[in-house]
Amino acid sequence: MTSAPDRAGALRRDAGNPLRDRRSLFTIPEGTVYLDGNSLGAIPRAVPGRVAQVLTEEWGTSLISAWNSADWIGLPARVGAKVGRLLGLPADTVWVSDSTSVSLFKTMVAACRLRPGRDVVVVERATFPTDGYIAASVARMLGLELRWADSDDLTASLDDRVALACLTHVDFRTGAAFDLPAVTAAVHEVGALMLWDLCHTAGAVPVDLVGPGVDFAVGCSYKYLNGGPGSPAFMYAAPRHHDALDQPLSGWMGHARPFDMELGYEPVRGVGRLASGTPPVIALSALEAALEVFDGVDPADLRATSLSLTDYFIELLDARLGAEVEVLTPRGHDRRGSQVSLRHQHAYGVVQALIARGVVGDFRPPDVARFGFAPLYITHADVYDAVEHLVQVVRDREFLREQYAVRNPVT
Amino acid sequence: MTSAPDRAGALRRDAGNPLRDRRSLFTIPEGTVYLDGNSLGAIPRAVPGRVAQVLTEEWGTSLISAWNSADWIGLPARVGAKVGRLLGLPADTVWVSDSTSVSLFKTMVAACRLRPGRDVVVVERATFPTDGYIAASVARMLGLELRWADSDDLTASLDDRVALACLTHVDFRTGAAFDLPAVTAAVHEVGALMLWDLCHTAGAVPVDLVGPGVDFAVGCSYKYLNGGPGSPAFMYAAPRHHDALDQPLSGWMGHARPFDMELGYEPVRGVGRLASGTPPVIALSALEAALEVFDGVDPADLRATSLSLTDYFIELLDARLGAEVEVLTPRGHDRRGSQVSLRHQHAYGVVQALIARGVVGDFRPPDVARFGFAPLYITHADVYDAVEHLVQVVRDREFLREQYAVRNPVT
Repeated sequence: MTSAPDRAGALRRDAGNPLRDRRSLFTIPEGTVYLDGNSLGAIPRAVPGRVAQVLTEEWGTSLISAWNSADWIGLPARVGAKVGRLLGLPADTVWVSDSTSVSLFKTMVAACRLRPGRDVVVVERATFPTDGYIAASVARMLGLELRWADSDDLTASLDDRVALACLTHVDFRTGAAFDLPAVTAAVHEVGALMLWDLCHTAGAVPVDLVGPGVDFAVGCSYKYLNGGPGSPAFMYAAPRHHDALDQPLSGWMGHARPFDMELGYEPVRGVGRLASGTPPVIALSALEAALEVFDGVDPADLRATSLSLTDYFIELLDARLGAEVEVLTPRGHDRRGSQVSLRHQHAYGVVQALIARGVVGDFRPPDVARFGFAPLYITHADVYDAVEHLVQVVRDREFLREQYAVRNPVT
Repeated sequence: MTSAPDRAGALRRDAGNPLRDRRSLFTIPEGTVYLDGNSLGAIPRAVPGRVAQVLTEEWGTSLISAWNSADWIGLPARVGAKVGRLLGLPADTVWVSDSTSVSLFKTMVAACRLRPGRDVVVVERATFPTDGYIAASVARMLGLELRWADSDDLTASLDDRVALACLTHVDFRTGAAFDLPAVTAAVHEVGALMLWDLCHTAGAVPVDLVGPGVDFAVGCSYKYLNGGPGSPAFMYAAPRHHDALDQPLSGWMGHARPFDMELGYEPVRGVGRLASGTPPVIALSALEAALEVFDGVDPADLRATSLSLTDYFIELLDARLGAEVEVLTPRGHDRRGSQVSLRHQHAYGVVQALIARGVVGDFRPPDVARFGFAPLYITHADVYDAVEHLVQVVRDREFLREQYAVRNPVT
C-alpha cells in the first residue's frame, strides 16, 4: 500500500476499538479481507472443538442417553436463551430449531391466528425473497390477501384489515434499516401484529424489541451470529402471546408431554410450543459454541464499532472514488445496518475482481455490490485495504475482464 | 456367562454373517450392547473427520465460497441420491433438508393438493405421534377431515373421499410392518395417494416403493441411517408427481432461480421444489459421511442379517423366559421390522435395569420395552448377552428396584 499515513490512521482506530480483542476468537484466513459476514459469518475458534466433543464424547460414548446426560433436549431453549440475552429479550421467549423459511411460516401463521377476522398480511416489495414466498403461502392457506408494501411509504398499506405486518429490519440489498419503534407503533396503531425479520440485524445492530412491544421476530444465525452454513434460525414470541400461540408445524417436540406419545396434540406452555421435530443437535451445538464470542460484549460497543467501520468505509470511498460508485446505504446512522452496498453497472464484475484480490463481498441482483462489516472481527485496517483494492478495480476497469463476467450459481 | 455352548453358537452365527466386517465402521462403546439404534443409530467412524473437514477446511478456509467450491448447495440432492440408492429409488427423487415433522407437513400438503375435491386424510391410531399431530394440522389448514384408521382393518377407513393415506411402515412400538404393496394397492384402489413413513424402515428393512407405485415417502435419518442426533429427514416423491408438486413451505431454496431474488415464487422443476430454507450443511455432511457404511451392502444381506438377529433374540427369549415376557412383534418374517418389542407390566424398570447392566434398549408407554437390531453393527453375541442379562433382570425382579422406578424425561 502506498498511502502509509492513511493506513496508520486505520490502525489507530483499531487500537481504540473496545472490541479489538474479539477477532482472535475467530479463524480468518491469512490474506483475506472478509466482508461477507452478512452472508456467512466467519468460524469462531470454539466451534470445531465443541462439535468434536458432541460427536465423539456425547454421541459416540453416551449414545441415546446423551439426550439427558448432555441435555441435548434442552438445546433449542438453551441456545434460544443465549440469543435472547444478546437481543435483550426476556427469559424463555426465544426458540431455535428450524430454517428461517420454516420459522417464518410458523410465526406468520401463529400471528395471523391471533387476529381472526382480519384478512390481510403485509410484506414489503424489497424483502428477502423467502419472506415474500412464505407469506404468499401463508396467505393462501389461511385465505388471506397478501399485500405488498413500499418500504418508503409503509403506512399506506396499513388499515384495519391487516392481521400481520412482516418486515425486514435491515434490507438485505441496501443495508437500510427501518425505524423499528416507529414502524411497530404504526402497525399496532391499526390493531395488527408486528413480525420483524432480524436476519441482517442480530449480532451486529442492537435493537429494542421489548419497549416497542414487538410481537414476533425471526432471524437467521449464520450471518452475524456465526452459527455456520445453514445453522438454524431463532424465533421470538412476546410472552403475552404464549398462551394463545397456535402454530401449524405442530410436531411432537411441541407437545406438553412428548414422550407420553399421546394421540392428541396438547401444546406445551410457553415458547416451546414453537418446536416441531427432533432438534438438530449437531447444528445447535455448533451455534451454542459460536455464540460464546458475544459473552461479555456490550451491545453499545457492537453498534459503535459497526458504525465506525461503515463510516470509515464510506469516508474512504468518498475520498478515493467520489462519484464513481454510488453508496446505496443510508449515510444517517439511524437508518444504517452493518453493511454498505454500492450500486455499480458492473457490480458482479467488481465483486469478482475483488474476490480475486482477497476482498470478499458479494453481489445481489441487479447491480448491487454488498460489503458486510461484522464488528467482532473486521478491522479498520481491513476497511482501508478493501478500499485500496476497490480503487484499483474501478480505476483499471478490472471488472470487465473476461474471467469475471460469468455468474456463479451462488455468490 | 455360564452357557458357554450357546454363546459359541452365537459366535458361529456371527462368523457366517456376510455383514460381519461392517461393525468396525462404527464406534460402539466397550461393554455396551446397543439395542437402541432404532432410536439413535451409533456413530460411523467416518463422521467426526468429515465434519471437522467441513468446519476447518471448508467453512474455516473457503468461507462463503464453499457453497460452490465444496458444493454445499448440492448437499440436499446429493445426500438424497445416496438415500435413494439405498432404497432402490430412481435418480432425482429424494430430497433431504428438514426434520421429519416438517417433511411430513410438506409432503402431506403437496399430496392432498394433488387430489382436489377429496376431503379426508387417513392416519392410523398406532402411528408415531408426530404423524398424527401434523396430519391434524394439515387437515385443519386445508379444510379436510382427519380419519383415524385401525391398523388391523385399514380398508374400513378407505373410500372415495380419501385424498391421502399416511401410514408408518414399521410400527414404532411393536415393530410390526404393514404389507406395503397390498396396503398401497388398497389405497390406490379408492383413488387416494399413499405416503409411507419409513422412519423405522430405512437402513434396516429393504422395501420396494417403485413396484407398488408409492406416491410419497418420508423417513428420519438418525435411526438405522446413523446420521446423528436430530439429523434431517428424507422425502421421496414419485417422478410422476414432480411437475404438479405444490408444497407449502415454499422457501427460496425451492425457487427455480433462488439467487435471482425474484419477488414471485416460481418453483424449480423436479424434487428440488420440496426444498425450503438454506440447507443445514453441517448436519447434511455428517449424514453424507454416515451413509458410507452402506456402500456396497446388498439389501438382501441387510434383511437377512436383521431377521437372523431378531429370530435369534425371540428364540432365546422363548427358551430362557417362556411366558414371562410377551413378544409383541410379529413372529412372521413378512410382518416384522428390525426391532423386537416386549410387553411387560414393569417395562420401564426392565429397560432401566438393563441399561444399568450395559444393555441399551428403550421404553415406550404404556408397557413396552423395545430392542432394535441394526444389522450393520449388532452381533449375535450381543443378542446372546442381552438375553442373559434380561433373564437375570426378570428372574431377580431387578425392575422393582427403587432406582429404576423414576421416569426420565427422555429414554
